[in-house]
Amino acid sequence: MKSENIPAPAIRRLSLYLRQLEAFRKADRRTVSSKQLGEALKLTDAQVRKDLAYFGQFGHPGIGYRVEDLINQVKKILGTDKPCNISIVGAGHLGQALTGYRGFSKKGFQLVAVFDNDPNKINTSESADAIPIQPMTELAETVDRLEIRLAILCVPAEAAQQVADEMIKAGIRGILNFAPVSLAVPDGFPVAGVDLAVQLEQLSFRLGGGTTAEAI
Amino acid sequence: MKSENIPAPAIRRLSLYLRQLEAFRKADRRTVSSKQLGEALKLTDAQVRKDLAYFGQFGHPGIGYRVEDLINQVKKILGTDKPCNISIVGAGHLGQALTGYRGFSKKGFQLVAVFDNDPNKINTSESADAIPIQPMTELAETVDRLEIRLAILCVPAEAAQQVADEMIKAGIRGILNFAPVSLAVPDGFPVAGVDLAVQLEQLSFRLGGGTTAEAI
Repeated sequence: MKSENIPAPAIRRLSLYLRQLEAFRKADRRTVSSKQLGEALKLTDAQVRKDLAYFGQFGHPGIGYRVEDLINQVKKILGTDKPCNISIVGAGHLGQALTGYRGFSKKGFQLVAVFDNDPNKINTSESADAIPIQPMTELAETVDRLEIRLAILCVPAEAAQQVADEMIKAGIRGILNFAPVSLAVPDGFPVAGVDLAVQLEQLSFRLGGGTTAEAI
Repeated sequence: MKSENIPAPAIRRLSLYLRQLEAFRKADRRTVSSKQLGEALKLTDAQVRKDLAYFGQFGHPGIGYRVEDLINQVKKILGTDKPCNISIVGAGHLGQALTGYRGFSKKGFQLVAVFDNDPNKINTSESADAIPIQPMTELAETVDRLEIRLAILCVPAEAAQQVADEMIKAGIRGILNFAPVSLAVPDGFPVAGVDLAVQLEQLSFRLGGGTTAEAI
């Protein structure tokens, strides 16, 4: 099935399944049923089976899913079975903060380049991994040479669209967008926006002690 | 039902339902069925009904859900029907980047204070909203005076636990944790971690053109 025909939430849940399967593996579980995987994530077993069915046939009658095999398959589906080179575009506060973020490489994403258009920032290596900051004029050459596939866009809102255009032209194949604007991109070009408000809403809920709303 | 008995993914999906309902309202939809809400989010209608049933009884036989009413109820459940004051602890690159993030206030979260333990940063107002940076010694008093409920933790990993302890002691009631460590907190204390790798996995998947994995 083509990626554009698979619902985004099902793809998002693949990441959850992967995290949970890795937890099962750590606990030395060899096999798991859709019911058990669903229960751990508070999803119905029908939802788990429906989601995974978009990507292939993974279950074994009377056994369920083999944990190790399913981990490898999900990683392959997500494309994280091999390391993926990423870059950060915009070395302001957020961009520089993210160069020190350790959560990327654990999941197979290697930060290999940082770009900015401010001449004062070029070739400083403020990043935790001492990756020098390069000028935007070197973007296309570097993307090509280092086979950079994904970029994290950390420029101010008013510059985001223009910089995104440059990134796409330079051969970046997907953008994680931190600028609080919607980007206009070619049909089918992968963009993900980071919505931190969702996380705050979850916390806010827990503060209320779980008020059950009255019926309406 | 008590909040600790409601599965976290169901609470997470409440945010998705809210976003979708607001989109329906914008399109002048007055009512929506669980099937339609599910279809828009690629969830089964059983999942939608099961999720919402944790929080109350919202459907009307033969009508479905009333969009406007359900928006108000979900906001009430999430506690975002009234503004919620938040603070940022740690005014390094990430903390300062987040003070300029515009996505919070739109969803009802007002940033009212920023804290750091670096004397050189105190009372500068580098934030976009010109909120001065206060010393950590003023945390408890300020949390009390401004009724700050949630805080975003943006300190380095090695300082995170100690600072989290101080925050909890100061009366902060929930933490959005950007430090890449698990925090030890009192039972039931709300903590959410931000996992940016999940977003990159989604993009990585889309790069592959949606390879269907072979059966295993």
